[in-house]
Amino acid sequence: MVDQPVWEQIGSSFVTHYYQMFDSDRSRLGAIYTDASCLTWEGQQFQGKLDIVKKLTSLPFTKIAHSITAQDHQPTPDCCILSMVVGQLKADNDPVMGFHQTFILKNVNDSWVCTNDMFRLALHNFG
Amino acid sequence: MVDQPVWEQIGSSFVTHYYQMFDSDRSRLGAIYTDASCLTWEGQQFQGKLDIVKKLTSLPFTKIAHSITAQDHQPTPDCCILSMVVGQLKADNDPVMGFHQTFILKNVNDSWVCTNDMFRLALHNFG
Repeated sequence: MVDQPVWEQIGSSFVTHYYQMFDSDRSRLGAIYTDASCLTWEGQQFQGKLDIVKKLTSLPFTKIAHSITAQDHQPTPDCCILSMVVGQLKADNDPVMGFHQTFILKNVNDSWVCTNDMFRLALHNFG
Repeated sequence: MVDQPVWEQIGSSFVTHYYQMFDSDRSRLGAIYTDASCLTWEGQQFQGKLDIVKKLTSLPFTKIAHSITAQDHQPTPDCCILSMVVGQLKADNDPVMGFHQTFILKNVNDSWVCTNDMFRLALHNFG
């Protein structure tokens, strides 16, 4: 851990925090977005923390659990962090599904916020 | 197409161009990276156009064909474009494999370059 670059530490802490919140109480995720943040969810576009949280809380399941298979992090030219996550999720009693999600994190007033978020279910799933 | 936001037009043109070059002559992909560009390929990190092209040209296949299933594009806070691609590829006579790739594109001297590139094969593939 000591040798991990700072963007990997920040990116992986964010990823852990994001899915913990998503799986326990996704209405609280507004705290990580700003009014300029963009979400593309399965090709549908949303902007701003209110619209994003409205979308996330309207998703038609009660219980959800994410499991991360791989995550990659890079610094961007403008001091942001790019994170790509590949994993599996289980929503209510549906079969396990693969997903991929990409985030850009930006430091605003000494805290990290998510400015960009893209989510897609994997096309070819497994039961 | 007329109503497509400019970042979608640029992002999707880039994606078409990238995979056409990759599938025809990937040694030419150096043109789209800068000396500061980052590539994470299946978790391995490379920086700079020389190292990136060295990695891409050393991949152990002769023929490759990508097919895009879905692509999403967003503007970033710093006037870059974030693109996420999901697709399938066939390398030589191997089975078709799923992949996902994320790019950040930045306008430098009136042309678009790729500053960040992350690639992962899908874990659960299909023959």
